[in-house]
Amino acid sequence: MPYDLWYWPGLPGRGEFIRLTLEAAGLAYRDRGVEEGAEALLADMRKGSRLPFAPPYLRAEGQAIAQVANILHWLTERHDLAPEADRIWLNQLQLTISDMAAEVHNVHHPVAMMAYYHEQKPEAARAAAQFREERIPKFLGYFEDAVEGRDWMAGGRWSPVDTSLFQLVAGLRYMFPRRMAAVEGDYPALIALHDRVTTLPGIAAYLDSDRRQAFNEDGIFRHYPELDAE
Amino acid sequence: MPYDLWYWPGLPGRGEFIRLTLEAAGLAYRDRGVEEGAEALLADMRKGSRLPFAPPYLRAEGQAIAQVANILHWLTERHDLAPEADRIWLNQLQLTISDMAAEVHNVHHPVAMMAYYHEQKPEAARAAAQFREERIPKFLGYFEDAVEGRDWMAGGRWSPVDTSLFQLVAGLRYMFPRRMAAVEGDYPALIALHDRVTTLPGIAAYLDSDRRQAFNEDGIFRHYPELDAE
Repeated sequence: MPYDLWYWPGLPGRGEFIRLTLEAAGLAYRDRGVEEGAEALLADMRKGSRLPFAPPYLRAEGQAIAQVANILHWLTERHDLAPEADRIWLNQLQLTISDMAAEVHNVHHPVAMMAYYHEQKPEAARAAAQFREERIPKFLGYFEDAVEGRDWMAGGRWSPVDTSLFQLVAGLRYMFPRRMAAVEGDYPALIALHDRVTTLPGIAAYLDSDRRQAFNEDGIFRHYPELDAE
Repeated sequence: MPYDLWYWPGLPGRGEFIRLTLEAAGLAYRDRGVEEGAEALLADMRKGSRLPFAPPYLRAEGQAIAQVANILHWLTERHDLAPEADRIWLNQLQLTISDMAAEVHNVHHPVAMMAYYHEQKPEAARAAAQFREERIPKFLGYFEDAVEGRDWMAGGRWSPVDTSLFQLVAGLRYMFPRRMAAVEGDYPALIALHDRVTTLPGIAAYLDSDRRQAFNEDGIFRHYPELDAE
């Protein structure tokens, strides 16, 4: 039976980390939020007990499993997506990717998480400068060191951390093309990993399909040219 | 052999979520950062492979295990701190607690994660208002619904999510005493859980010891009276 993935339609957001793993692993799923819309998502989210705080979540065997790292860890255990001995390390890295994604979101919503970017543009300009100059090198340097000398992050094969790092690099390129062009040369192993993920058969087919969710200014990674700089 | 916990000395921060679980479970540990200081911590963090991105981390069997939810999930599996069937749900809740803690940190550092509060006070005032008015009810209402009708979050016994929710409530009370006094009545099951955690023998002994790390303005939960309001 296919998994039911529920996430906001119209943006890649945090749901894309789940889609990429499902697609790379060749696991059947229905993209219910995309197919049925936000109102259906909000109605589904209130069903049953042990409710999610927020999308994305997977429905499987009657339960709703939420939180990106939790979903990926659960899928990893269930479908052997990484060697057992590496799973704690990979979960740790996935949580660090989540931390960076939260900081990315914060760049556009620094003082009011639930308000619009245009309501906090001066603050966002300040947040973006600090993120570009300090946080990008700190996070990407960390991931570079972690993957250096390897084709995949752990276990000699792709795992959800690899597809998540692909999305992180792709998202940062969309968000800050000038900054990324200036610094990418410092992270050759991470960029090679990004490129290698695109050659996985499931990912190559996905990126070529209309199932792939394009970056836009409703997602986590947003391109506002005024926030970018080398 | 005791666990080695490494975290910044002088503040409860994210390390406190780990301490509370170790203390509640009666697991022996050395609080290395507190005992040896920040320089020793920074030196230790660079040892070995598979390095942490940031403290807290536990050293066990030669590996460094980092990220709060990852550490707690690992301890849960290793020491049976929750029934197996509940672990995915508990990990999901722990990650939601981590999300709220990150938003708490953001209140004091809205536009520059690595700069001081006094460098971003107007922005922090705006972030605090939104956090008090919108995010506290959203998160605490969610945790209230999750624990309502139960003594403990899952499995009929305490688990790391319970001690983490204790710390979350205690931290919010320290941070926003006026706001919390005004809204606590809406979350009776959550407050009862907070109180119940203090009666666990390991926690009662810990809170009464000098090992307990007091809240202060270096931690995640900070009390700046100008940011509080009912």
